[in-house]
Amino acid sequence: MQNRTEIAELGEFGLIEHLTKNFEIHNASTVLSVGDDAAVIDHFGKQTVVTTDLLLEGIHFDLMYTPLKHLGYKAVMVNLSDVYAMNATPTQITISIGISNRFSLEALDEFYEGVYLACEKHGVDLVGGDTSSSNKGFIISVTAIGEVAPNKFVKRSTAEKGDLICVSGDLGGAFLGLTLMEREKKIYLENPKIQPDLENESYVVGRLLKPEARKDIIDFFEQHEIMPTAMMDVSDGLSSDVLHLCKQSALGCIIYEEKIPISDESSKTAYKFGLDPTVCALNGGEDYELIFTLKQEDHDKITLNEEISVIGYMTEITEGCKLLTRGGNYFDITAQGWNAFQK
Amino acid sequence: MQNRTEIAELGEFGLIEHLTKNFEIHNASTVLSVGDDAAVIDHFGKQTVVTTDLLLEGIHFDLMYTPLKHLGYKAVMVNLSDVYAMNATPTQITISIGISNRFSLEALDEFYEGVYLACEKHGVDLVGGDTSSSNKGFIISVTAIGEVAPNKFVKRSTAEKGDLICVSGDLGGAFLGLTLMEREKKIYLENPKIQPDLENESYVVGRLLKPEARKDIIDFFEQHEIMPTAMMDVSDGLSSDVLHLCKQSALGCIIYEEKIPISDESSKTAYKFGLDPTVCALNGGEDYELIFTLKQEDHDKITLNEEISVIGYMTEITEGCKLLTRGGNYFDITAQGWNAFQK
Repeated sequence: MQNRTEIAELGEFGLIEHLTKNFEIHNASTVLSVGDDAAVIDHFGKQTVVTTDLLLEGIHFDLMYTPLKHLGYKAVMVNLSDVYAMNATPTQITISIGISNRFSLEALDEFYEGVYLACEKHGVDLVGGDTSSSNKGFIISVTAIGEVAPNKFVKRSTAEKGDLICVSGDLGGAFLGLTLMEREKKIYLENPKIQPDLENESYVVGRLLKPEARKDIIDFFEQHEIMPTAMMDVSDGLSSDVLHLCKQSALGCIIYEEKIPISDESSKTAYKFGLDPTVCALNGGEDYELIFTLKQEDHDKITLNEEISVIGYMTEITEGCKLLTRGGNYFDITAQGWNAFQK
Repeated sequence: MQNRTEIAELGEFGLIEHLTKNFEIHNASTVLSVGDDAAVIDHFGKQTVVTTDLLLEGIHFDLMYTPLKHLGYKAVMVNLSDVYAMNATPTQITISIGISNRFSLEALDEFYEGVYLACEKHGVDLVGGDTSSSNKGFIISVTAIGEVAPNKFVKRSTAEKGDLICVSGDLGGAFLGLTLMEREKKIYLENPKIQPDLENESYVVGRLLKPEARKDIIDFFEQHEIMPTAMMDVSDGLSSDVLHLCKQSALGCIIYEEKIPISDESSKTAYKFGLDPTVCALNGGEDYELIFTLKQEDHDKITLNEEISVIGYMTEITEGCKLLTRGGNYFDITAQGWNAFQK
């Protein structure tokens, strides 16, 4: 970066003005946006969905290998993913940041470029937020608001026995991207002259740094009149998230190991690290795919979509949550997903 | 505290369950609450207001003299204040927290007791949030959602020339509470055996630690069919906030020093510290009162309410923003309010 403008030169209100001046309004429901005590949203005849996520430097991201533009993009995306997971369409976000004085205005601009890109891509309006200095670290809090036709939202607790369990995209990639970046960071810290070896790894690195919330899946549901019986996003790893669906729906499940979608790129990276790709998909997090359940009679409707895999089905709660391995053995699925309190 | 339960024992989901189990739903518009990817809100025929605030330890609060229960209460209140400042009624909040491992579950319970109290008092539902560990300090992010009849919300930018400028309650108290607590902290750090001297200071301490969002004023407006022409909350000090109203409405103003409401308790504390009470009201922050403008013909309607003071009127932008002192002199009002980036 060539220029460095200190944040203190602008003050809080100047900063907000600067950061939000390029954001245009996309949604007719956005009546009033940034610049007042609160934004105003008009949702006549629709239901409003609201979700929020906190992203903390050193806990959720490492600025050593996370470009600020990607971070801004991802901070929005992880919240939009929660809105889509309700079968809703995101319409507005608010974003609050706490920054220490090691960040210049130019650095913040990069962050907001990513926020802007994510908003543009998903037709979402940035309608408010808060900015503050922090004593240490970069703090990001995003709240996303969406809308859904009355009672068309999909909860986690409404799966039924016999329903198919489906996931979008592929799993484990983001965790492998993280494993790779952590290795490169360690090598770099030991010897700053060694260049990072990321050749052929762009897929898993992209999965980590630039996740895409699955708007396409929600659009597909609407076009084909598909109503999942339950849904959530896969953010903590397949094990942890499928256990949530089971617990909240008071059911058990069987997942077929061979049906878990894992990309070739992810598998190759896993083997390079001596890891089992299935374990990466089960226990790695941050894939931001959707996991949902579907009535069996809807099976034909989803075969049209190559981005959707059927990986198992819901059973009675007494049957527990099981993984049927390629070798034909049953294992209990346990939550070893990402837990912010166990570092 | 006698018991100490480590947060890690519960994990993130156990913690959320624990913290939110006592929250009941007050609003029919709350269709789905905590426990899914997002909450669902039904606002048929109303407009939705959304606002968010970040509160950071060491920047916005000092746990040395802020009881956690008060902090939880205040974290909610400062957001509700923004909703009322839109002439709207708060209905839901989300609350995200980042906590280091120096906090026990019992400490968090105290914080949530305050959150609960604030929600109860204002009939607001807690519908979601996020919890995370933090490397350092207590991080709080609250988003408040409210509703307002179509186009009855009140912006900052719509004051007109000649409109009366009014404020609720009294000003400067929270700043004096802060000044007092900072002095006591300093004395304590120098000599931990000296007990804090807070006799007769409960008013200003209360103004700092337990602010009350002015629901009563919004209710009064509704009962008496009063529609302010512009409104915001006084959170950064009267100077800074009146300048916002003027800037956004492209007008000037005259404020009468003698009309600025200051409590006797605040004046006494100010004199004890050798401070001018007017300066405390102008430049101190965190009073969470409402400042609003009103058409002159509505003057009689507000004389009914002793909690409302008329402190001046809006002028042409060319006349600037002036304070007319008790001594009959005009001074330019300048923004010396609280700025999170100038510490």
